[in-house]
Amino acid sequence: MTRLRDLGVAPGHLPAGPCNAITDVPGVRVGHTTLIQGEGPLEIGVGPVRTGVTIVLPHGGDLFREKIAAAVHTINGFGKVFGFEQVRELGTLESPVALTNTLNVGLVADALTAYMLRGNPDIGVSTFGTVNAVVGEVNDGFLNDIRGRHVRQQHVWQAIENARDGPVAEGNVGGGTGALCFGFKGGIGTASRQLFDGQVTVGALVHANFGARRELLVLGAPIGEHFVDSLLPQTTPPAGSIIIVLATDAPASPHLLARMARRAAFGLARTGSTCSDGSGDFVIAFSTTSRRPYLAARPASPTETTARVSEDPWTASALFAAAVETVEEAILNALVAAETMAGRDGNIAHAIPHDRLSELLAHYRRR
Amino acid sequence: MTRLRDLGVAPGHLPAGPCNAITDVPGVRVGHTTLIQGEGPLEIGVGPVRTGVTIVLPHGGDLFREKIAAAVHTINGFGKVFGFEQVRELGTLESPVALTNTLNVGLVADALTAYMLRGNPDIGVSTFGTVNAVVGEVNDGFLNDIRGRHVRQQHVWQAIENARDGPVAEGNVGGGTGALCFGFKGGIGTASRQLFDGQVTVGALVHANFGARRELLVLGAPIGEHFVDSLLPQTTPPAGSIIIVLATDAPASPHLLARMARRAAFGLARTGSTCSDGSGDFVIAFSTTSRRPYLAARPASPTETTARVSEDPWTASALFAAAVETVEEAILNALVAAETMAGRDGNIAHAIPHDRLSELLAHYRRR
Amino acid sequence: MTRLRDLGVAPGHLPAGPCNAITDVPGVRVGHTTLIQGEGPLEIGVGPVRTGVTIVLPHGGDLFREKIAAAVHTINGFGKVFGFEQVRELGTLESPVALTNTLNVGLVADALTAYMLRGNPDIGVSTFGTVNAVVGEVNDGFLNDIRGRHVRQQHVWQAIENARDGPVAEGNVGGGTGALCFGFKGGIGTASRQLFDGQVTVGALVHANFGARRELLVLGAPIGEHFVDSLLPQTTPPAGSIIIVLATDAPASPHLLARMARRAAFGLARTGSTCSDGSGDFVIAFSTTSRRPYLAARPASPTETTARVSEDPWTASALFAAAVETVEEAILNALVAAETMAGRDGNIAHAIPHDRLSELLAHYRRR
Amino acid sequence: MTRLRDLGVAPGHLPAGPCNAITDVPGVRVGHTTLIQGEGPLEIGVGPVRTGVTIVLPHGGDLFREKIAAAVHTINGFGKVFGFEQVRELGTLESPVALTNTLNVGLVADALTAYMLRGNPDIGVSTFGTVNAVVGEVNDGFLNDIRGRHVRQQHVWQAIENARDGPVAEGNVGGGTGALCFGFKGGIGTASRQLFDGQVTVGALVHANFGARRELLVLGAPIGEHFVDSLLPQTTPPAGSIIIVLATDAPASPHLLARMARRAAFGLARTGSTCSDGSGDFVIAFSTTSRRPYLAARPASPTETTARVSEDPWTASALFAAAVETVEEAILNALVAAETMAGRDGNIAHAIPHDRLSELLAHYRRR
Repeated sequence: MTRLRDLGVAPGHLPAGPCNAITDVPGVRVGHTTLIQGEGPLEIGVGPVRTGVTIVLPHGGDLFREKIAAAVHTINGFGKVFGFEQVRELGTLESPVALTNTLNVGLVADALTAYMLRGNPDIGVSTFGTVNAVVGEVNDGFLNDIRGRHVRQQHVWQAIENARDGPVAEGNVGGGTGALCFGFKGGIGTASRQLFDGQVTVGALVHANFGARRELLVLGAPIGEHFVDSLLPQTTPPAGSIIIVLATDAPASPHLLARMARRAAFGLARTGSTCSDGSGDFVIAFSTTSRRPYLAARPASPTETTARVSEDPWTASALFAAAVETVEEAILNALVAAETMAGRDGNIAHAIPHDRLSELLAHYRRR
Repeated sequence: MTRLRDLGVAPGHLPAGPCNAITDVPGVRVGHTTLIQGEGPLEIGVGPVRTGVTIVLPHGGDLFREKIAAAVHTINGFGKVFGFEQVRELGTLESPVALTNTLNVGLVADALTAYMLRGNPDIGVSTFGTVNAVVGEVNDGFLNDIRGRHVRQQHVWQAIENARDGPVAEGNVGGGTGALCFGFKGGIGTASRQLFDGQVTVGALVHANFGARRELLVLGAPIGEHFVDSLLPQTTPPAGSIIIVLATDAPASPHLLARMARRAAFGLARTGSTCSDGSGDFVIAFSTTSRRPYLAARPASPTETTARVSEDPWTASALFAAAVETVEEAILNALVAAETMAGRDGNIAHAIPHDRLSELLAHYRRR
Repeated sequence: MTRLRDLGVAPGHLPAGPCNAITDVPGVRVGHTTLIQGEGPLEIGVGPVRTGVTIVLPHGGDLFREKIAAAVHTINGFGKVFGFEQVRELGTLESPVALTNTLNVGLVADALTAYMLRGNPDIGVSTFGTVNAVVGEVNDGFLNDIRGRHVRQQHVWQAIENARDGPVAEGNVGGGTGALCFGFKGGIGTASRQLFDGQVTVGALVHANFGARRELLVLGAPIGEHFVDSLLPQTTPPAGSIIIVLATDAPASPHLLARMARRAAFGLARTGSTCSDGSGDFVIAFSTTSRRPYLAARPASPTETTARVSEDPWTASALFAAAVETVEEAILNALVAAETMAGRDGNIAHAIPHDRLSELLAHYRRR
Repeated sequence: MTRLRDLGVAPGHLPAGPCNAITDVPGVRVGHTTLIQGEGPLEIGVGPVRTGVTIVLPHGGDLFREKIAAAVHTINGFGKVFGFEQVRELGTLESPVALTNTLNVGLVADALTAYMLRGNPDIGVSTFGTVNAVVGEVNDGFLNDIRGRHVRQQHVWQAIENARDGPVAEGNVGGGTGALCFGFKGGIGTASRQLFDGQVTVGALVHANFGARRELLVLGAPIGEHFVDSLLPQTTPPAGSIIIVLATDAPASPHLLARMARRAAFGLARTGSTCSDGSGDFVIAFSTTSRRPYLAARPASPTETTARVSEDPWTASALFAAAVETVEEAILNALVAAETMAGRDGNIAHAIPHDRLSELLAHYRRR
């Protein structure tokens, strides 16, 4: 797997974490279930299958019992995410985050709910709580038999079981298996940044399936313009989308996480997106250290003492810059890591050619 | 089935439509699938089952082909609605609206998606479109084996097929089968108002499952206070929720529909709700006559001519008052129509006793 | 001055604080400058003058140095409030809150800015900070020469100097001098509630100038319907507005304050408002104990430890109910405290007659 | 005055209008009042003065009588804009848009209100309407005696009287007189794009005062990195801000304008901004052809027929791309047009050196 830095370049000014991945945020794990099956003409319900599920697990405990501060942001709402309203209202995340294809969101939400119920036998029985699953999606119908809706509950549960810390598989994996990005093969990408002498890490994982070829910028260089007539998809791919997951171990409040989430659009814009009508672009941000335990009964005191990020201009701005940089690099990692894939009806999504990309980056003096 | 007006009272100042139901908006149909099975102790996955699905169909055509102007509003986001982001962004509704229990939202969204795919074989094949299902929910776990997640695809499709115009079944039906409202039995309710000499109708359908007993107001009278020690649920019911569907045949823009949707909270407040933390209260508003056809290709002109509601103060305020009144009456209809029901573990939700309610309304000089 | 409780009634279930006023929240002070001058025909720039300024001071220190957590909520945005964007973004309030007439908002914002600059000679000099004034307004043009824009900087500064704790003057004072409410004389009103055995106080102050006569509900009783043909304004008054200030000494986060602010609409709705198009209804909520000191330089650590309200369902719901009750009572206090006033062109706004109101409340068994 | 295109470069893919200015949208006029007075040490209230007012006039008629469709978007709300709530609620603009310094917003709002009152003698007299002024601001305190608050009513009125169509003065003019951008001299900039074979124009005018030196990108090239040690301000300038005004003659709805406004952030991001905590970044978008006349009485019909932009994916995406491109170029025009200026306490803001910028753009193969 090739990553952007293997080409000798990196966006931004902040240092990356050891894996340059969302898993650099301690406790965060990522798992994929990748579904690739069949080739040739589309036979609905049979294949070709080019889809999957990616899971981001914020911590190793039970998320329902140990909720974490979270925020969501909708850059462009033309998409079918699940679970955003409750995160927005309560400022908490209480399930893994799942990424899949557009037509499987309902099923994946159902499977995620089932998973959380299994781990919490009191939900809906001795207590009357319920659980809020969070799911994002992209339209992988250019390569995938998306109508076949091939993702099943077992695939979601597998992806959760597969979740690991350390390096993250990128490109044609999990929910990104059939994704396109700027008309090239896209998929999953990740990156991280360290702040405050390593006291704080910010990580991003993207599910990248957006963009028109001509618009692609790599470190600001107009790379897309060099490929307007080559390596094109046979037909117009779906309108696209990107789901961006931001994680930090800073004890950020939901309010601050929402502000960070809004900056993700700035990282996205740097890659050339003009946020077209059909691109459903969403952000989910969470803090692994701002926790809110589930309470089965009224607490003794209406107040509590917690650690929080100082929301001063210096601290906030540093977190914002980190969010911008990680998102930009995560998208470029998705693009660089992805490999050429043929899918339904012989549709081919070409990987961006690394040699030519390197040459062009040199031409534009970015390396 | 008893309705509020059968007790000789009605809130507000505007005249109701012929059915005093959301179906008074021409073209709107409502269908229910009601699942009632078993009794006695909870056996997860077996029962007792007290749940279902309610469908609101905005018009008789294919909603994907003939999208309608719509808006959503989140009063309190502690809930698991589906499809809100896209309605908010695009201002269009392209699927039936389904109402069910909290833990079945994923499945119902999946089933609604499947239904729309069946009717539109090009989705995900010759075109790359997808479809946005809209689902609301309440927690019926006091009466229902909610963990059993008994709603299946066939129930959703049945409810669509069941959809009818004319009078609407209320109370213990469809998604409202297992609902509680102010600690009494709740469920589905509906109402309508006519405006501008009958030129315009506004209708509401509510999925009412919210409220603490003591808070209940009926036409402003503090009815709940008279039942603080009687006809109580055996244990504290789930925190509640209400989904409010508003419909009009006025050619309202998404912008105006959003303003109407925000007024639904005023109707809700009149029944005594203080919008507690756990009450996930959501509104979906649509216009049956502001349509946006699906386009498979770029139109010849970037502009078009359309009929729209005049957004002047008089017209807007009249629509707002209608929204408030219909929501208040729809909630009270849900309460009055509902009948006493025993459910899981022998839990009983009592209907509000009509005789005593009538007496109290007379005592408070409301009839 | 008569208050609602002098008529023997009170809304809600929670106990009021000692003054039943926003000043029951320790540290909160209120000041008015009331401008009443001239009578008879309108002479623009001369009078009659029936306007003023009301100031809510969250604490006794320098608000720029010792900012407090705050949130805003727009119920209906047809109004000209100042300073909302920054409160929404940062979650902090750094100036007194001023309430005045619609056409004087710019001037009052300017005066408030000047006041804060005077107390902070470094702003714009050694530091590059600026200050965010918060101003709300209502249209008092039925009684007042509103075009004359009679409020001046000195009036704003006086109101700040006048600010006191303890009982608050209500009705025809300060920014409420020329206000109408449900076609009766309106103005300033306040109320409070105590929670958690007196550990926490929630207070509201309203600037009430909204509502159509027929809609008025007092404790749910349809009082307005009894006055549809009597004590009416000579002409249609301006469309109205209400500004609601909520205060608490619970160490609430901006996120929780925003949730409380959204519940203010429920208190407003209980008085009969249908939130008409022209009614600019806004909420400002703050916590006197969640503080964020102004920092002139980057802090040593990116994190800090703070006390916060436990955002569990019990604590949050209690705060929400308190918000609803205080707003309802504050509005009714504004209505009851206001006295009949004649203004420009001999326009008369009648006080709601206390005797008749008492009779009607007895008739409706509310006392 | 030098513009970006004078250096032989231009961002984006769409053709510019004849003036490459917001005034290419027919009817739009721009006026400036530029206040430059004194030099040397800061003497508060005396100078040095480096500030002013810029006015964007959407059309030549009376904006109160002939309101236009509009939307606002807050990218980062740390700022003191005026009038946003009403635009957001009603979707209409009814006053000129004024841009000034942070501490003069109240006064400028007051002056704009006075101007609108003068033109509409019925406001607040025979009718009870009021008027909503819209004002944006940036902090020019690095060069300007911002505490002195030197903008007066006459300056606002002059800027309105000065408003012209055709070429627009950029850089150190009007509200941008004392602005910095990426640590260089900034100010006012503008640009336009034509769409649909010239049937539609989109224009932007920016009030640019944001950004950290190192972050500056010009057409994606990392220009800022080449100036991290040269031509720096003596001290850290204020945190910055940008106000973006978007105009179009397409008959866009408020809903579509809001979507366009959200894309402005993408143009901003392309110049390198990471949207730091202190940068108050706001967007105002309007359509000159979607009009809503002021009505003094209820209209005969609750509906009307209007021309609207077809909100299909092709049309919407084209408008979005135009918004992104015009904003990027308008910012770069502000930067290129601005000239070195010395201000209070001898503070100097250097113009970006055109020769060096040209060289660097050639180095990075952008020209």
